[in-house]
Amino acid sequence: MQFADRLNNVETSAIRELFKLLGKPGIISFAGGFPDSAMFDVAGIKEASDKALTDEPGAALQYGATEGYNPLREQLAAFMASKGAKDVTPEGLIVTTGSQQALDLLGKTLISPGDKVIVEGPTFLATIQCFRLYGAQLISAPVDGNGVDTDQLEQLIAEHKPKFVYLIPTFGNPSGALLNLERRRKVLEMAVKHQTLIVEDDPYGDLYFGDAPPPSILALSAQVPGSREYLVHCGSMSKVLSPGLRVGWMIAPAELLAKATMCKQFSDAHTSTFAQATAAQYLKAGRMPATLARVRKVYAERAQAMGGALKKELGDAISFVQPQGGLFFWASLTGAGGKVKDGNEFAKTAIEKGVAFVPGTPFYAVNPDHSTLRLSFATADVAKIEEGVGRLGQAMSRA
Amino acid sequence: MQFADRLNNVETSAIRELFKLLGKPGIISFAGGFPDSAMFDVAGIKEASDKALTDEPGAALQYGATEGYNPLREQLAAFMASKGAKDVTPEGLIVTTGSQQALDLLGKTLISPGDKVIVEGPTFLATIQCFRLYGAQLISAPVDGNGVDTDQLEQLIAEHKPKFVYLIPTFGNPSGALLNLERRRKVLEMAVKHQTLIVEDDPYGDLYFGDAPPPSILALSAQVPGSREYLVHCGSMSKVLSPGLRVGWMIAPAELLAKATMCKQFSDAHTSTFAQATAAQYLKAGRMPATLARVRKVYAERAQAMGGALKKELGDAISFVQPQGGLFFWASLTGAGGKVKDGNEFAKTAIEKGVAFVPGTPFYAVNPDHSTLRLSFATADVAKIEEGVGRLGQAMSRA
Repeated sequence: MQFADRLNNVETSAIRELFKLLGKPGIISFAGGFPDSAMFDVAGIKEASDKALTDEPGAALQYGATEGYNPLREQLAAFMASKGAKDVTPEGLIVTTGSQQALDLLGKTLISPGDKVIVEGPTFLATIQCFRLYGAQLISAPVDGNGVDTDQLEQLIAEHKPKFVYLIPTFGNPSGALLNLERRRKVLEMAVKHQTLIVEDDPYGDLYFGDAPPPSILALSAQVPGSREYLVHCGSMSKVLSPGLRVGWMIAPAELLAKATMCKQFSDAHTSTFAQATAAQYLKAGRMPATLARVRKVYAERAQAMGGALKKELGDAISFVQPQGGLFFWASLTGAGGKVKDGNEFAKTAIEKGVAFVPGTPFYAVNPDHSTLRLSFATADVAKIEEGVGRLGQAMSRA
Repeated sequence: MQFADRLNNVETSAIRELFKLLGKPGIISFAGGFPDSAMFDVAGIKEASDKALTDEPGAALQYGATEGYNPLREQLAAFMASKGAKDVTPEGLIVTTGSQQALDLLGKTLISPGDKVIVEGPTFLATIQCFRLYGAQLISAPVDGNGVDTDQLEQLIAEHKPKFVYLIPTFGNPSGALLNLERRRKVLEMAVKHQTLIVEDDPYGDLYFGDAPPPSILALSAQVPGSREYLVHCGSMSKVLSPGLRVGWMIAPAELLAKATMCKQFSDAHTSTFAQATAAQYLKAGRMPATLARVRKVYAERAQAMGGALKKELGDAISFVQPQGGLFFWASLTGAGGKVKDGNEFAKTAIEKGVAFVPGTPFYAVNPDHSTLRLSFATADVAKIEEGVGRLGQAMSRA
């Protein structure tokens, strides 16, 4: 069978092979990119879905507008306002089938084969593959503990004149990094200066452990005249409420939103109205603040436990910035004392010792750093985290 | 803003403008393509979703496999077996976000810009636009009351060597036509002879009014050796249970299914597990046969009423084949007695008289027949159908 040429741009994920091993009994997994099912507010979601089917069964079960179910768009605009993005209107956003679909719609709407797109190095794996399927040539901007290096980013924008720049500025996957306030301003200024579209993907921003992070780039755009018209913001219910609903949203300039809506019409017609009506009822019931407070507390404890255990068990053989939110540690193997310095190699030894994580190389669009790895602290409790990191320590001694 | 070149291949839908007029108070609409909300089994769906959230909350709310939720895949394989396609395994299908996504995945997986695809003339509007977004060059095979003309289809296949042929063989949208058994066999034979992939889109096959239609092309493929490897079958819960769930499925040869799964991973990761678990519980509860019996009966009455009213009110000014299932009448204006012969013109007069339908031209990929129109009998009850067709009669006298 002859497939479309665009499939030549992607490889089957190296991670998939690793994930097959996760079924092995007794494995402690730091490999996942998902929230802990045990923390889902099942009662609240059940109440919301029952209410949707009682109060609005026709709408919740019928075809809906491609742009999204209006009661949900209203709730999402209010949710964004509560997070400082006060000028978002219900008409200024569309509901997407998870934020993955927002990425797909951006690719479909904007990328012609050969177009350049700048992403962070490292960045979300499925973003890389998604944009490549549309023929994007990806350029990688380096990230440090304060997020993307904006000086280097500006040079890359000037040099490559990309179709857009894709960033996960807040507790990014996999970097866990938090883009500082100064750099956020700088991103908005360079968007205007270079007339370059910036995509802010923000699935983790609500999962902070201490003080709230700086405002989203979207919220900050009110302070940088002209920047809003170069800004796309993608949000998601997946990490804070439930990935299974597949409810995300995209805020973008009107013209882009209209084209993305047309593309969505032919992608899946609309996002499940059943899931949308459920999410709308959930938000309307006012349960989100308590849910967020609860998950923040649990993830903060787990992040604390993982950071402490990594220092204790792996010492100077590993280096990392303690994350202030999100789901991930991003770490480098230092090779100190002649220890293993290759993330892929370490992943293999680790799985033999009964602990899994994802090596860092697949998260780079280009020029992978082989010493890196991603550890998720989201799905194991503190005891399992300590046991798992202990196994990493054993694997390190052996490797 | 500069959009991707692929957007140049689609026009904004002419229908969208018409649909804006549907909000006018008092309009009777035969324009929609959706089932009647009043017939949704709300109690059954509520029971199913409650059971999903009670028995399997983790799975129903968490990320899931891109291929689909296994309990649903099992139920869908059993559902297909109950309809005569006995060799469908759970692994032989993937769950899609409505059958619209199956079309999108076929486009993404198979169509390189310039590739030829044969569709029926007329065919489903969103199929035309979906494939064009991937750069397909569409060829149109004519349809009569017995479905696609297989002699002409074979000539077109031989001449154009298309990437695939897309058919809605059973109560097609918009044609309402039923491909007869002989032609179904012929389609399978030509798939093998010309080594051409056939896509059978089957959202309406369960909505028959009298005797069951001939077996699906998929079910028949068991009788034509070698044909199964050239066959894709798309199914949907939208017309029989609820469009709002966005649950469809695609059965295809393993290699194609694997590529489509990879594409889906970067399109929306997976279909809502909440909706999938709900659909699985619904099917498992054994409610589908009674639901199907109920909707068949109601739609049969409405189709009967519409056919009778059209003959009475419009006489020889309109010609159509009485549909044996589905949601649509497909009709031609004959121009008899100097009456209006143009579907677009008639639609405008009709809406002034308070009744809406969709003119037929947008359903043609090429060479539209301007005399055609599509009337849905799904959402108006018998009294409204008679009143609406009465208004069509008045519009006809005036036009």
